[in-house]
Amino acid sequence: MASPEIEALSGALARLPGLGPRSARRAVLHLLKRRETSLATLLGALQAVNDRLSTCSICGNVDTSDPCAVCADPRRDARALCVVEEVADLWALERSRLFPGRFHVLGGRLSALEGVRPEDLAIDGLIRRVANGGVDEVVLAMNATLEGQTTAHYLAERLEQFPVRLTQLAHGLPVGGELDYLDEGTLAQALRARRPLA
Amino acid sequence: MASPEIEALSGALARLPGLGPRSARRAVLHLLKRRETSLATLLGALQAVNDRLSTCSICGNVDTSDPCAVCADPRRDARALCVVEEVADLWALERSRLFPGRFHVLGGRLSALEGVRPEDLAIDGLIRRVANGGVDEVVLAMNATLEGQTTAHYLAERLEQFPVRLTQLAHGLPVGGELDYLDEGTLAQALRARRPLA
Ligand SMILES: [Zn+2]
Ligand SMILES: [Zn+2]
Repeated sequence: MASPEIEALSGALARLPGLGPRSARRAVLHLLKRRETSLATLLGALQAVNDRLSTCSICGNVDTSDPCAVCADPRRDARALCVVEEVADLWALERSRLFPGRFHVLGGRLSALEGVRPEDLAIDGLIRRVANGGVDEVVLAMNATLEGQTTAHYLAERLEQFPVRLTQLAHGLPVGGELDYLDEGTLAQALRARRPLA
Repeated sequence: MASPEIEALSGALARLPGLGPRSARRAVLHLLKRRETSLATLLGALQAVNDRLSTCSICGNVDTSDPCAVCADPRRDARALCVVEEVADLWALERSRLFPGRFHVLGGRLSALEGVRPEDLAIDGLIRRVANGGVDEVVLAMNATLEGQTTAHYLAERLEQFPVRLTQLAHGLPVGGELDYLDEGTLAQALRARRPLA
C-alpha cells in the first residue's frame, strides 16, 4: 500500500506495547500529515534519547545521564534504598513521589522456571552499596508474585549480616499484581504501610 | 521522574492517536530497554521517512516518492479515478486491494460549519485531471456523512460537463461511518456494489 520506508515505520511502531498494526497505521498517518510538528518532534526526541541513553552505573536505572537523575540528586535520602525488579517499577514508584530515597534495579527476579540465578541479577552491586555503609533501610519492593517474594527472601538472607532495617511493601497489593500496573493510590498505601521483613 | 529528554520522548509518543500518557511511558521503557533493536529501528525508520516524505503532485497522497507509488505504477488503470477526502481513506481502500485505478485526495470535505470552501480543497486539480481526458469513471468515495455527501454532490455538478461515468460507494456503509474505521469486508462490499450517482 505504501513505500518500503513507510511500511518499515509502521512495522516499528506496531511492535511497541499498546500499539497494533491498525493503530500503528493511524499513528503513521498522523505523523505524515504533521511533518513539521509531530514527525519532527518525535524524531528529535528519539534522536536525543538515543544519543544520550545510558544505564546508571550506580542503580541500574536507564536515563540520559550517568549517574541517573535520581542518584545525582543531593536532596534524595541516601540512607533509604529501595530495591526493585525492573526499571519500570522504579518509574512507577517515582510517579507516586512518595519514596524520598534511592533505588537499586535488579534487572529481573529469581526464577527456576526461566533459569534466572542470583548471578544473573545486579545483586553483587546491591551488597556492595549496603556494605559501603550509610544505608539504614532497604525496602525490598519486589512484585507480589511467587518469584518476586522468593527473590525478596533471598535478598533478606544475603543482607541480614548488615546493620540495616529490611522492609517490604505492605501486602495490600493484589496477589499476582505487578507494581507497574497498579494505580498510584494502591502503590502509595502499600509504601506507607511497609513493614519489617518477617 | 526522568530526564527532560525522556520526558520529551514520552510526550511526543503520548500525542499519537491511540496512545495516552500511560501507554507512552510503557512504550518509552520498551524502547530504552531495547536500544539496539527497537529504539534504533524506530529511529532509522522515522529518519528515512522524514528524509524522503513528499506529497504526490498528481493525487495528493503522501509517500516517500513523487509521484507516489500508486501514480507511478503503470499497471494501475488510469481510466478509473477514485476521489477521497483524506489520505487515510486512500490507504483504507488500498488495503482492500479492490480498486485497480488511481486516486485523487481532496484534503478534506466541504463544511459550512468549519468554513471549508471548494477553493480550500484540491478540486481544481481534480477537474484538470478529468478535463485532460483518458478518464472513463470517477468514483466519488466520500464518507457517508452529511458533509461527505454534500461534497460528492458538489463534485458531481462540477464534473457533469465531462463525458465520464460518476459513481459513488454503495450505501451499505453505516450512517455517519468513516471509511478509515470500516472493516475491509464492509469496504469491499460497498466498493463492489458501487452505483451511478443519482
Ligand atoms: Zn541511578
Ligand atoms: Zn499519487
